[in-house]
Amino acid sequence: MSALSLDALDTPAAIVDLDRVERNLQRVAAYAREHGLRLRPHTKTHKTVELGALQVAAGASGVTVATVLEAEVMARVSDDVLLAYPTVGARRLARLMALPSRVRLTVALDSREALEGLAQAARDAGRTVDVLVELDLGMRRVGLRTPEDAVALARVAASTTGVAFRGVTFYAGHIRIPQAELPAAMQAQSQTLASFVDALRAAGLPPEVVSGGSTPTLWQSHLVRGLTEIRPGLNVLNDRNSVTIGASDWSECAYSVLATVVSTAVPGQVVIDAGAKALAKEEGLAPGYGVLLDRPEVVVKNLSEEHGLIDVSATTWRPRIGERVRVVPNHVCVSVPLHARLHVVRGDTGVATWEVAARGW
Amino acid sequence: MSALSLDALDTPAAIVDLDRVERNLQRVAAYAREHGLRLRPHTKTHKTVELGALQVAAGASGVTVATVLEAEVMARVSDDVLLAYPTVGARRLARLMALPSRVRLTVALDSREALEGLAQAARDAGRTVDVLVELDLGMRRVGLRTPEDAVALARVAASTTGVAFRGVTFYAGHIRIPQAELPAAMQAQSQTLASFVDALRAAGLPPEVVSGGSTPTLWQSHLVRGLTEIRPGLNVLNDRNSVTIGASDWSECAYSVLATVVSTAVPGQVVIDAGAKALAKEEGLAPGYGVLLDRPEVVVKNLSEEHGLIDVSATTWRPRIGERVRVVPNHVCVSVPLHARLHVVRGDTGVATWEVAARGW
Repeated sequence: MSALSLDALDTPAAIVDLDRVERNLQRVAAYAREHGLRLRPHTKTHKTVELGALQVAAGASGVTVATVLEAEVMARVSDDVLLAYPTVGARRLARLMALPSRVRLTVALDSREALEGLAQAARDAGRTVDVLVELDLGMRRVGLRTPEDAVALARVAASTTGVAFRGVTFYAGHIRIPQAELPAAMQAQSQTLASFVDALRAAGLPPEVVSGGSTPTLWQSHLVRGLTEIRPGLNVLNDRNSVTIGASDWSECAYSVLATVVSTAVPGQVVIDAGAKALAKEEGLAPGYGVLLDRPEVVVKNLSEEHGLIDVSATTWRPRIGERVRVVPNHVCVSVPLHARLHVVRGDTGVATWEVAARGW
Repeated sequence: MSALSLDALDTPAAIVDLDRVERNLQRVAAYAREHGLRLRPHTKTHKTVELGALQVAAGASGVTVATVLEAEVMARVSDDVLLAYPTVGARRLARLMALPSRVRLTVALDSREALEGLAQAARDAGRTVDVLVELDLGMRRVGLRTPEDAVALARVAASTTGVAFRGVTFYAGHIRIPQAELPAAMQAQSQTLASFVDALRAAGLPPEVVSGGSTPTLWQSHLVRGLTEIRPGLNVLNDRNSVTIGASDWSECAYSVLATVVSTAVPGQVVIDAGAKALAKEEGLAPGYGVLLDRPEVVVKNLSEEHGLIDVSATTWRPRIGERVRVVPNHVCVSVPLHARLHVVRGDTGVATWEVAARGW
């Protein structure tokens, strides 16, 4: 793409700051190297081939995906794909087995039903799929809750043709714990994790892979004893939530939505053309739905579908109709797939356009 | 498309029940006819050419859109398009002026800046664009708040080449008012509206069009004196919110997201593969993010990106892994654009696939 000013874009438009992305990539790679952790970033945050390729180039030993479409897309840039999602359903399995044979495929799952379906599909396709048993260490979403259940499923995996037991995985989900309290929380998590790992070892099924880590807990991952791999997702772009919890600095926010001021009729607020359909109306860890990139004290107080209502009651900033702003949303991962493409900039100059190739399923 | 069972679809998948859509279309058309109101449905809810065409066939005298892309898409099925959004920005205006000349274009706006930009673009394109002055009758989003401001903007519109003053528009935004209290609220709104209309008449600018109405207030629209046109949006599909406020019946919910149960590991809940990226994690008027179409007492209590957590603590229903469910989300208008296409069914049989042609901008 030829150099393009942001001024030439229709709004709303999703913007990625490549300088910041590169710094974010380097920081996490350095952290992983320092602590001897394999880095397997979760690509659900960006869903783009190009950013996946940058992650691999920056030292990721593989990628994580949440959907089969993400697996299909990321297989273009990585030979080592972890689907961190139970593989249930014939069509999902069929697509997964159609991934190029060069791709080492690992699946995280927590049920015998999912395991047996996967193994059958793998046998039919003449593949062997690595399996991680998903543990619930307190998130209460998916995952097995007792060492006994984990051992039982690992045993089935180890003895079933078509799959190979490789280890365990978990998602910490500590997003609402303040960073200062994280070390204690993660020590407790380490102990829970150890009870699973010990039970697997005692059963003759020592986990080769212990995969954890998320952006909220990212920089304390080394406190989890026995961890071999981290899977940070939104850290490559960051968002208002990650800054609020202290997992990233404001200068590391690499994603924003460019918007135009379209109305100033109602006193105390201005209206922009980025609403729920561009930012996502997801409650965050602070009031409102986003803040301005250049004025983080100015809050998007409400969203309707195509309207963002910016509170200007506590700022002297008074934008004119037609002025453009960039909004950092609460949660980048749900804003990105609202856009067909990401406009990549260095400073204010466009340097590339990336298709959000894995949006949808 | 040949007849297709829902079983053949990958999940998550957006499903539209065509029998229900047809009943919804007939009901609103009958209401509009009975009360002598023109019907201009807001197509932002569905963003599909096919559903726009059905609305026109069922008696809509034109369509409403929120974005230029919606205008471009809906111009394929209607010659009378209202853009209910301020036209700010050179690229937005250029695209709007490139609409086919057969399209009678009306724009709602609330500022002189937007008006002058539109008029200039219209003159450059050799068009005349109809203008509705946007009023704020209490929603506090966009719109002029005093009759004096409305008269001033209408006067500029009436005297500016390239645009023609046609009337006024407003969005009621009464979504949190119980249906039982709506008539009183709408009487009050009528009085406010009358003060605007009277002022315009006194200024020699009688509004030919008085356009209002939304799904929450839809069935009481005739209580607004002087209203000439209604613009219901989500009423064609409905959702959990519209049922909660009593603006639609459960049997009128025509949109759901088909999902597969992928985990039952955590007691008291089951996990489906429709999360925030399929349903939209928007707070609604009742706790949770959606309910099951066939079991509306069963609530989706939380969403992460690709996980929906269904609370089964208060039901005897115990689905198995692999079982499929259909979820009615809180707000259909923000769920639809998460999908590339809508799978249209009669009963459980697929009869068509509609592209969400106007998703994006």
